[in-house]
Amino acid sequence: MKKFIYIFLLLTFVLACNSRAENPLPSWNDGPTKQSIVTFVEQVTDPKSESYVKPEERIAVFDNDGTLWAEQPIYFQLAFVADRIKELAPSHPEWKGQQPYKAVLENDKEALAASGYDGLLELLMTTHSGMTQAEFKEIVTQWLATAKHPRFNRPYTELVYQPMLELLTYLRANGFKTYIVSGGGIEFMRPWTQKVYGIPPEQVVGSSIKTELEIRNSKPVLVRKSEIDFIDDKEGKPVGINSHIGRRPIAAFGNSDGDLQMLQWTDAGEGPSLMVLVHHTDAKREWAYDKDSHIGRLDKALVEANKNGWTVVDIKEDWKVVFPFESKTE
Amino acid sequence: MKKFIYIFLLLTFVLACNSRAENPLPSWNDGPTKQSIVTFVEQVTDPKSESYVKPEERIAVFDNDGTLWAEQPIYFQLAFVADRIKELAPSHPEWKGQQPYKAVLENDKEALAASGYDGLLELLMTTHSGMTQAEFKEIVTQWLATAKHPRFNRPYTELVYQPMLELLTYLRANGFKTYIVSGGGIEFMRPWTQKVYGIPPEQVVGSSIKTELEIRNSKPVLVRKSEIDFIDDKEGKPVGINSHIGRRPIAAFGNSDGDLQMLQWTDAGEGPSLMVLVHHTDAKREWAYDKDSHIGRLDKALVEANKNGWTVVDIKEDWKVVFPFESKTE
Repeated sequence: MKKFIYIFLLLTFVLACNSRAENPLPSWNDGPTKQSIVTFVEQVTDPKSESYVKPEERIAVFDNDGTLWAEQPIYFQLAFVADRIKELAPSHPEWKGQQPYKAVLENDKEALAASGYDGLLELLMTTHSGMTQAEFKEIVTQWLATAKHPRFNRPYTELVYQPMLELLTYLRANGFKTYIVSGGGIEFMRPWTQKVYGIPPEQVVGSSIKTELEIRNSKPVLVRKSEIDFIDDKEGKPVGINSHIGRRPIAAFGNSDGDLQMLQWTDAGEGPSLMVLVHHTDAKREWAYDKDSHIGRLDKALVEANKNGWTVVDIKEDWKVVFPFESKTE
Repeated sequence: MKKFIYIFLLLTFVLACNSRAENPLPSWNDGPTKQSIVTFVEQVTDPKSESYVKPEERIAVFDNDGTLWAEQPIYFQLAFVADRIKELAPSHPEWKGQQPYKAVLENDKEALAASGYDGLLELLMTTHSGMTQAEFKEIVTQWLATAKHPRFNRPYTELVYQPMLELLTYLRANGFKTYIVSGGGIEFMRPWTQKVYGIPPEQVVGSSIKTELEIRNSKPVLVRKSEIDFIDDKEGKPVGINSHIGRRPIAAFGNSDGDLQMLQWTDAGEGPSLMVLVHHTDAKREWAYDKDSHIGRLDKALVEANKNGWTVVDIKEDWKVVFPFESKTE
């Protein structure tokens, strides 16, 4: 009997060691980028380390566009706006002669650009307000089920970064609570973040429009009003984090100047912290862009990252695989 | 060897049964109120029940003032305002002749009432804005460590309801995520809700003032501005719930007309739901008040509760113990 017990204990030990030795980030190439992430996680989870952080304080925040999923050739939420305008157009014959709608219907990028911020805001409100939250959720879900990305001809939710999915799983396995903190619409993300990222609606922070309680068909409903409530970008990100989480993150992941303040806010915490910038350097598998891009401009944040010793992910060098569908076709 | 294994299994079984049979709500008298709560919890957690709800959807929301802790003779946050004005007064000699400060310094309730909403707002902004979030947290923590309730001569955080503490623990043990959804200030609650209720800062929803990121001493800080951002009361409660949680609760607990819309919003969900109103009926152990009270007025919500078959807690009848310190002195 004793012998069996010894064998059992030995087996348990071997299995435990094996599972620890397993590569938790298989799509990341070995090197200083991956090492900086793994070292940080090992330190904050080691009760004997001076850098140990209690599980409840292990808050990790992720930008979405360009950090967890792609953002080219235009932010996917803008593709939703354009598709939605075209879908609604038959009920609005007047749009054929009215900017900024005319520009969208005719795919006229110049005219659209000329309509400026006010034009964009009008398109946003036309497509994002007036309905209840439940109706909007249904509209977004339907769109994601049918719309295809123009370059990859796949649903937008397949254009997520495989290495970042592994990172989310790895952090959660180490007691982190993972949040999205995006300039995108909070209600545009919530319908699908659990399924795609394993992030529940209560851990999504984003931009929002005003919402009001109304009675429709003798039931209380939340109606989306055509007025901006909060912009969760740049200086807004630490504000959104404080409002929703009420704690300072110890790890922050972004890819553009819109994430700079979130990374600085994380860096300014008293304990250990990890700041990571994803640099889009791979025109072949994805896109290469930084300081000259209109979408996801990365300029000042990259300078700050180098100055402060933050981790910079070079997609071309650091990622074995970019999108999940690449591994499937290999 | 076999005998030992049988004894071990039997012991495990007995211990498991015992722990299930243990009374999870010892401060609640047996009766229909307690039964309605227990029956609801048993149904939504039973995978074989038609009313089964997946753990991630088990969201329970609690009002704070008058539901989790007391709110008489004035909301405790107003006691904080008054104490804080008195503490700041030496640096503001002009307040001696200036309303609404004069009224506070002289404990002149009539003059204070005469200053109206604008007066209250000014006092609120003077005591709640201008500092960083971290500084405000420290101010609240210091106040709670020293201030005493006028009737019970105990720290305010001891005036929490023992039966509600048991309820929070019971719900969490059954896979519920417990949230506070209060008209009180979100940052006034966050410094102490984990310790007192077991509710972490990210599960606190409340009223807020605008916050902005600024650089002070070359570090980014969040500064509290003297402008209302969001009032988490009445129609605001479902809005705050949607913003922070993004799911509809299946259980809601309140005590006043300010909670009516939160209860209606919960009731209007498609699945099973539990709506509970705490009715303050015990002038001896606590306070008795409802429709004629300026603090925590309960009028319309009680009518709706009776009409809709919601659970109404009669403190005098349903609670064996009101405050935790009662059990200690028994």
